[in-house]
Amino acid sequence: MIRVGIAGGAGYTAGELIRILANHTAVELRYIQSESHKGEAISSVHGDLLYLPLSFSDIDFSDIDVLFLCLGHGNSAKFLAENPVPESVKIIDLSNDFRLKADAGEFVYGAPELNREQIRTARCVANPGCFATSINLALLPLAAAGMLPEDVTVTGITGSTGAGQKPTQDTHFSNRAANLSNYKVFTHQHLGEIGETVVAAGGSATTDIAFVPVRGCHTRGIMSDVVVRLDASLEQIADVFKKYYATHPFVCVSDKPVYMKQVVNTNYCFLSLQMQGRKLLITSVVDNLLKGASGQAVQNMNLMFGLDEMEGLRLKASYF
Amino acid sequence: MIRVGIAGGAGYTAGELIRILANHTAVELRYIQSESHKGEAISSVHGDLLYLPLSFSDIDFSDIDVLFLCLGHGNSAKFLAENPVPESVKIIDLSNDFRLKADAGEFVYGAPELNREQIRTARCVANPGCFATSINLALLPLAAAGMLPEDVTVTGITGSTGAGQKPTQDTHFSNRAANLSNYKVFTHQHLGEIGETVVAAGGSATTDIAFVPVRGCHTRGIMSDVVVRLDASLEQIADVFKKYYATHPFVCVSDKPVYMKQVVNTNYCFLSLQMQGRKLLITSVVDNLLKGASGQAVQNMNLMFGLDEMEGLRLKASYF
Amino acid sequence: MIRVGIAGGAGYTAGELIRILANHTAVELRYIQSESHKGEAISSVHGDLLYLPLSFSDIDFSDIDVLFLCLGHGNSAKFLAENPVPESVKIIDLSNDFRLKADAGEFVYGAPELNREQIRTARCVANPGCFATSINLALLPLAAAGMLPEDVTVTGITGSTGAGQKPTQDTHFSNRAANLSNYKVFTHQHLGEIGETVVAAGGSATTDIAFVPVRGCHTRGIMSDVVVRLDASLEQIADVFKKYYATHPFVCVSDKPVYMKQVVNTNYCFLSLQMQGRKLLITSVVDNLLKGASGQAVQNMNLMFGLDEMEGLRLKASYF
Amino acid sequence: MIRVGIAGGAGYTAGELIRILANHTAVELRYIQSESHKGEAISSVHGDLLYLPLSFSDIDFSDIDVLFLCLGHGNSAKFLAENPVPESVKIIDLSNDFRLKADAGEFVYGAPELNREQIRTARCVANPGCFATSINLALLPLAAAGMLPEDVTVTGITGSTGAGQKPTQDTHFSNRAANLSNYKVFTHQHLGEIGETVVAAGGSATTDIAFVPVRGCHTRGIMSDVVVRLDASLEQIADVFKKYYATHPFVCVSDKPVYMKQVVNTNYCFLSLQMQGRKLLITSVVDNLLKGASGQAVQNMNLMFGLDEMEGLRLKASYF
Repeated sequence: MIRVGIAGGAGYTAGELIRILANHTAVELRYIQSESHKGEAISSVHGDLLYLPLSFSDIDFSDIDVLFLCLGHGNSAKFLAENPVPESVKIIDLSNDFRLKADAGEFVYGAPELNREQIRTARCVANPGCFATSINLALLPLAAAGMLPEDVTVTGITGSTGAGQKPTQDTHFSNRAANLSNYKVFTHQHLGEIGETVVAAGGSATTDIAFVPVRGCHTRGIMSDVVVRLDASLEQIADVFKKYYATHPFVCVSDKPVYMKQVVNTNYCFLSLQMQGRKLLITSVVDNLLKGASGQAVQNMNLMFGLDEMEGLRLKASYF
Repeated sequence: MIRVGIAGGAGYTAGELIRILANHTAVELRYIQSESHKGEAISSVHGDLLYLPLSFSDIDFSDIDVLFLCLGHGNSAKFLAENPVPESVKIIDLSNDFRLKADAGEFVYGAPELNREQIRTARCVANPGCFATSINLALLPLAAAGMLPEDVTVTGITGSTGAGQKPTQDTHFSNRAANLSNYKVFTHQHLGEIGETVVAAGGSATTDIAFVPVRGCHTRGIMSDVVVRLDASLEQIADVFKKYYATHPFVCVSDKPVYMKQVVNTNYCFLSLQMQGRKLLITSVVDNLLKGASGQAVQNMNLMFGLDEMEGLRLKASYF
Repeated sequence: MIRVGIAGGAGYTAGELIRILANHTAVELRYIQSESHKGEAISSVHGDLLYLPLSFSDIDFSDIDVLFLCLGHGNSAKFLAENPVPESVKIIDLSNDFRLKADAGEFVYGAPELNREQIRTARCVANPGCFATSINLALLPLAAAGMLPEDVTVTGITGSTGAGQKPTQDTHFSNRAANLSNYKVFTHQHLGEIGETVVAAGGSATTDIAFVPVRGCHTRGIMSDVVVRLDASLEQIADVFKKYYATHPFVCVSDKPVYMKQVVNTNYCFLSLQMQGRKLLITSVVDNLLKGASGQAVQNMNLMFGLDEMEGLRLKASYF
Repeated sequence: MIRVGIAGGAGYTAGELIRILANHTAVELRYIQSESHKGEAISSVHGDLLYLPLSFSDIDFSDIDVLFLCLGHGNSAKFLAENPVPESVKIIDLSNDFRLKADAGEFVYGAPELNREQIRTARCVANPGCFATSINLALLPLAAAGMLPEDVTVTGITGSTGAGQKPTQDTHFSNRAANLSNYKVFTHQHLGEIGETVVAAGGSATTDIAFVPVRGCHTRGIMSDVVVRLDASLEQIADVFKKYYATHPFVCVSDKPVYMKQVVNTNYCFLSLQMQGRKLLITSVVDNLLKGASGQAVQNMNLMFGLDEMEGLRLKASYF
């Protein structure tokens, strides 16, 4: 059994990790740490887990095999500086602290569809961002094929859980319900990851991605609509996508237009392609908390420990 | 023109008041006070009012005819103590500070369907609570007819705007969306108003109201389902209701079951009656911010100034 | 491996069954029948199952161990009359055709918390209705203890999936969103099941249940608020509930008020109790498609085949 | 008083027209025609209008001054062929039958911000489409200034009411809630109107608009995000927009990013501009049923009859 510790156990990504790992046959949940909730039952925060007899505690790093860091962005590096984790413990960080090459150190960027082999042997993995995952998976095949144009335009619509558990005006129900708004237009922090992923796949460092993030009036899920203008046929492009993802179990290239609820509460990314003249739309849908966060983190754990990549991740879609 | 001042201008009920009064032909919006937003444009808080050239300011009490108090519960009495308002200025308070007889002083309980004549001559009016309005209007005809049984059971489902503008876990979109929960079960603060209204109408002081307030996953609107067991025919009861409300323009007794969106973004209360054997369901729907707050406040202002009761309140329902 | 056939495979309850059984370690999905979609891929209807290489087909009854009937109400009896199912095949019917004693024949009412031992040995099980499950579980302990009063008032708020896949005005998004309405007031068809369950548990045949079903503006989940007036202490009542459900893994009696999203996308029923004076509120939350339909059907299958009652049903809550 | 007839009175746009015109001081609602509901009360379809004593009837064309056609697309031309309307009656058509130059005949394209003077003297007006209105208003200033680039990329997210009152799988609550999907990708029927508007304003006939329409999980409102790459400063562009709309009362160019609920249940279009390097985002929000349909139709009526352009259209935003 893989002994697991989770730091920052009261947040949304930690909650999803616990929900997944509680049913993962190769895992034993040993420590779920939370400074603000120490000693309380897990269910005091994650209310569905009433039947799970676990409480928030400190982590005994000598008694775990893998540490998930679910701390806020900027806090992972600090946590690791303050808490010496033995070399024998693998680390999967869900923040953006180690994703960029300039920050990575020994961390491998945990996109299995780009870096699966490096992840298998990594000690430390930086789990990608939710928007980054959604957009990376739309761009990777074209970048790898040298077919990605310079100008890329992306509208990505995300659910409120991407903003975490802290109540703000942007996540206030009276404001958010039945509303739509843009934020961080052209400047979202995931653009760094996405740019580096395009280059790592073989694309150009000068790719210009106009990314408009949209706050949707739903809780879970991202739909990214990527528009490029391209001289190629839909058949050629579909072929490129299907070949690229042939061996990746969590990415499905659909022959029909995809929609967001196909993947909500699952670890899948569904992609579809539509074309008219030179205009190509690539649509990518993921659950921001699963393939966009905790699900992908478990996928990475599975790879790092030599398990079936899908173990614990055959989740029933909520679908409705 | 009636010169209006609003204290506590940044909250939800103030926003609704401004939206209504900006189009009220007999009103001039003179002062909209907000401590936290003084000097800012109204639209910095109430984002739809981009075209309204007004800013938050202090109130010159010598330059207004009526003062609306949209302060938080408990703050109205304090505000009046600190700000001497001339006798010539009428006051309409939207908090619960003066609703109960024990607190009222010169304040009249502003339920036009109970106290219309007193409101016409009142200087000060305590505007009823949103749940209270919804439930009062369901109970008044039976209470007045001496037909209200001792045991009353009410489930009232309310939108998030009833909780105001301050973000909390209960109004956090990720929690509230697609969710239902109860709160203040059997102990909601509006029970006091409701009990006094029943008595004022002629009902019994020992009426036992089991009230379960429910947080719905919508923003605007209350549906109250009132169940009693009663020895009378549906025809008799319908007759009692229709007679009671015959002269009240904002209450409609429907022959078909009512639903909440019939009244959202209007000042109406719609009621319907359904019966089987001795079991009677009275359904009452209102918009919590309008008939349940700011709309009724303007209705009271109209009465206090001798205007058409509906002036400024012929609002287009949003309906969808 | 238990070989499974599903009749009526295109509906919502069938979709949920397929989602659950595709991951059930003791089950082989053999035949998913649909007249209207014969020959099409499962994913043409259940869009999330893009990766599941199954198509709609006829059922070879000699090649299955259990048959799930997911046909519309009234069609199960007809289907069984037209399709001779061998005695060796167990049957679990999700319609209301065989739930009432007068219709049951050899069908056992499939409420594990009432009839677990009979279900273990039954060939045919009539799976309870969604509202019935929610309300039964709120009433059973009191009925069994002889403590259930004559007058019971229930408001049950349900999601749109309870109405199935056929688009109507009541499930039209423009009507349903941000709306609330009542339906089948005091006459809902599940009242029959509920009444028989109360009696079977030891309660009175004259219990008068005033049930107001409410259409909520969410897709999944039921919250039932049951109000009774009772001479007993909260401690006594809590004790009755906890003892009753001590051995039932899918029912949790919570010390804190429950809310609907605790159980959405799970097979759990969570219950809570609140009291003031003689007024008792029992709140019961279930997912109408799982504990209220397909999840409970699999729970019954597990019992009928001697498996762990929870097998295949340790589902990750969607929670948000 | 302007005597009004409405053909196709049972649909959503007719409902909104009735709601607006019932409070329009210069209008008398004379005839609301519906084949399927003839003789029924208006409120049998438009449930909020319980207090409006009107019924569906045939239209006496000799007794009206203006006819609104709220029939389905393709049915307006047919209706006019079958029903000879006197020359003295003005016509406002809400379908797409007469919007394109090739179909227009004597119909003027009813975009006041493009054709206000022609509308004032027109007998017949073709009211623009909802997406067309939203996108036209984002493109007009740049097109008129000769600054609109060849490649334009638009994502427009719309509410369910745009699809009308007929229930379908796409508007089925269980499907639509908390979901996102694209439709008519690059081929939406409003592209014709938009292209002609760009040209009429002075733009290029070869402008290539990549338009991705998105079904949002809300009922009312459109947010269109228009991305272009452009060599100009944000100040220059903002100046172009503000000058263009200086005299148009229903279009506001905001200095802060706009969001959809600012305009829901109003006749306004709010626009905002954001830029980074050469990338420009123009965001345009409208209510699809008002500025995108019935509100704009009344705006056109006001212009055609020499009334204040805003008469009857100072609507209280629902905002929440």
